[in-house]
Amino acid sequence: MRYKFRALMLTFGEHLIFHSMQIKANDPSLKSWVDVPQNSDFPIQNLPFGIFRTEYMDAGAGVAIGNYVLDLTYLHENGFLSGLGLTQGVFNQKYLNDFIGLGKDVTRAVRNRISELLESGNKELRDRKAARELALIPMDEVEMLMPVQVPNYTDFYSSEEHARNVGSMFRDPENALMPNWKHLPVGYHGRASSIVVSGTPFHRPKGQTKANDAASPSYGPCRLLDFELEMAFITCKENGLGNSISTAEADDHIFGFVLFNDWSARDIQKWEYVPLGPFLAKNFASHISPWIVTMDALEPFRVKGPKQDPEVLSYLKYEGEKNFDISLQVGIAPEDSNETIVCNSSFKYMYWNVNQQLAHHSVNGCNIQVGDMYASGTISGPTPDSYGSMLELSWQGKNTIAMNDGSERKFIQDGDTVIMRGHAEKDGVRIGFGEVSAKVLSAKD
Amino acid sequence: MRYKFRALMLTFGEHLIFHSMQIKANDPSLKSWVDVPQNSDFPIQNLPFGIFRTEYMDAGAGVAIGNYVLDLTYLHENGFLSGLGLTQGVFNQKYLNDFIGLGKDVTRAVRNRISELLESGNKELRDRKAARELALIPMDEVEMLMPVQVPNYTDFYSSEEHARNVGSMFRDPENALMPNWKHLPVGYHGRASSIVVSGTPFHRPKGQTKANDAASPSYGPCRLLDFELEMAFITCKENGLGNSISTAEADDHIFGFVLFNDWSARDIQKWEYVPLGPFLAKNFASHISPWIVTMDALEPFRVKGPKQDPEVLSYLKYEGEKNFDISLQVGIAPEDSNETIVCNSSFKYMYWNVNQQLAHHSVNGCNIQVGDMYASGTISGPTPDSYGSMLELSWQGKNTIAMNDGSERKFIQDGDTVIMRGHAEKDGVRIGFGEVSAKVLSAKD
Repeated sequence: MRYKFRALMLTFGEHLIFHSMQIKANDPSLKSWVDVPQNSDFPIQNLPFGIFRTEYMDAGAGVAIGNYVLDLTYLHENGFLSGLGLTQGVFNQKYLNDFIGLGKDVTRAVRNRISELLESGNKELRDRKAARELALIPMDEVEMLMPVQVPNYTDFYSSEEHARNVGSMFRDPENALMPNWKHLPVGYHGRASSIVVSGTPFHRPKGQTKANDAASPSYGPCRLLDFELEMAFITCKENGLGNSISTAEADDHIFGFVLFNDWSARDIQKWEYVPLGPFLAKNFASHISPWIVTMDALEPFRVKGPKQDPEVLSYLKYEGEKNFDISLQVGIAPEDSNETIVCNSSFKYMYWNVNQQLAHHSVNGCNIQVGDMYASGTISGPTPDSYGSMLELSWQGKNTIAMNDGSERKFIQDGDTVIMRGHAEKDGVRIGFGEVSAKVLSAKD
Repeated sequence: MRYKFRALMLTFGEHLIFHSMQIKANDPSLKSWVDVPQNSDFPIQNLPFGIFRTEYMDAGAGVAIGNYVLDLTYLHENGFLSGLGLTQGVFNQKYLNDFIGLGKDVTRAVRNRISELLESGNKELRDRKAARELALIPMDEVEMLMPVQVPNYTDFYSSEEHARNVGSMFRDPENALMPNWKHLPVGYHGRASSIVVSGTPFHRPKGQTKANDAASPSYGPCRLLDFELEMAFITCKENGLGNSISTAEADDHIFGFVLFNDWSARDIQKWEYVPLGPFLAKNFASHISPWIVTMDALEPFRVKGPKQDPEVLSYLKYEGEKNFDISLQVGIAPEDSNETIVCNSSFKYMYWNVNQQLAHHSVNGCNIQVGDMYASGTISGPTPDSYGSMLELSWQGKNTIAMNDGSERKFIQDGDTVIMRGHAEKDGVRIGFGEVSAKVLSAKD
């Protein structure tokens, strides 16, 4: 099969429109004239978008290919992307918002055209040395920046295993899930300003906590710092205040995905979160991976989600495969020491899929904006080694996690770097996310 | 006293700096050559900032004076505001973010200069007919727009009476306040995208609710639609991720205030909010008044807050008067009918003040951005006629509220317009907010 075809059924009012989505760029047989190392996250079938900086340029859009960044500003200004509906200067910006806001017809055409340009038989760039050397920048010569300006950020709570683990620890193992949990994708608003890109170090947060046996709270550095392994999707199409997005329409609103580390201060959270939810326990920093892997690139990795029982309400019903089989991994590297893998999980475990999340979020008319980030909630699997947080891995500090250097962890220590990775693999093609990595510095004086 | 002086003590590290804040524009004896009707919210001592549109201009910054809008783009382009540190084109924009981001030294100087220009003895504009007529636009010829682009929105829960009322209804009257309530200003993140300006109609939200006696939830229009009377402050200075803002520094980060209607769908809220807080019950729409009344204009109305017992932790302690005596009012106008005032409250009732809110919000290093909105939470007073929501006024639907047209309300009905107003008054000077008003349309099919 030379190209991959998918039939998508979209409902517009009373009418059914059959939309044939042809994604040439996903063809597993494609090879690039750019050298792509074995096991690279960025083969020609991926082509994720990001924003990078170099010694000579403040910020601009690029696409990852092997160990290179393809400079989209250069390609656009030199006519390699003409006729695709791109606006002038759309890549020469600090963020991808304007580009992804052009809609999936345009962004898909750009990805297909880039695939064409990079394909081994294509001479347009391959055989023009000067252009090729200007367009392809080695990854070690760029700094990756935030790919989008995030107008709104929501965090869901959509992994059943995570919700059960937390409910068992803090409430009742026999009634671990709240009554609403299987009826709607529970979510809450988070802080957009403190979402930062992989590699940004941050200080252990300070705040108010109260020990169980203390008469009153105290102020100081968080003692139970944790990560949460999540993925987030980024939206590219507005609905407008008052309008809902159906589960069928949701695909058209989602540009792509990043890895998301939702850092959590468990002791601050415990004292503050009743009755209005997590606040300072979460908003000191969240890290994302810099490359947005498009939903298009992930099409081949769609899988069925879990059976939802009880049956969901009409607006949450969906057709087709809306989960994604993406392997996820978390490592901890203590200061000056090697990394230890502490978790292997998968995005396929989600009980609520992204289409349901977006349909629920907008069922009341809430307006979705371009660049919004919607995180999954901690992604835990069924086995203890697949739990996506130290809270669960150490089971509230009852167990210790052994590091390769002989030290032990219950939560995250100063100097630790937490690294998350993700990739999907099938038919010899590996679509990866790179990593989201961040080092914890000691609390400020 | 010709001018008002205030001594403010700011702590920078080990040093105490005495900063004399002279706000000429607050002088109660000032009169303007612009006709300002008796009881206007916008005398020369107010000078609030907003963004307006006319038949001839898409968007630009203005200041309210009586029944006129002073066009700041015109003043700036024609040299009336030179030497104040303003950047080119700073007023000719869709939002005030760039202007307020210049900092309070600049924005204060601009307000003082506008006061000077509008003062009855000043001829610069008064005696130049052409300039005067271009600079002053009748309010009924403009449409007010959102004054700022809101990067982040937080809602606090800082009125003790409101928290007690809600706690009494939903939990236990003997233990109405949660254990954390008097130790920290409880807050949660809200949705920035759905904050809209006064006058924007909106549809009753739909969503998921579950009756107490129902076996499972159902989907449909919200049945218990409510307002929440709030005020919100808008920030003008960044701290940068990882840095805290002290209660003393907070004044310098707060540009001004607006009225805020935090619409709430009580039945949706009840079913969704445990354990992660309100979500779809709040994010379908929030309305603000269009004019930002500066913190400077409100200086004369500072009052002491309530005694805080138990004593708060060090980072929440503060010096001076940080509450504001601002009378607040809510009216309901049924479709084609007159308005009935249902609530008279005051901003002075807040248990936690804005300086404490901002210090708490940033104690963990959360980065505050220019244009952020921080709402107070429902402002209820001690008496039943001062409760700031229908939930409290009707005591969870047990009582009815009589309308002037003979109808009754427990919650808000389709076709109702809810209007909130606020003003401070002292020494013959009235500093008003105008109003925030919004009509509820029936749920969309």
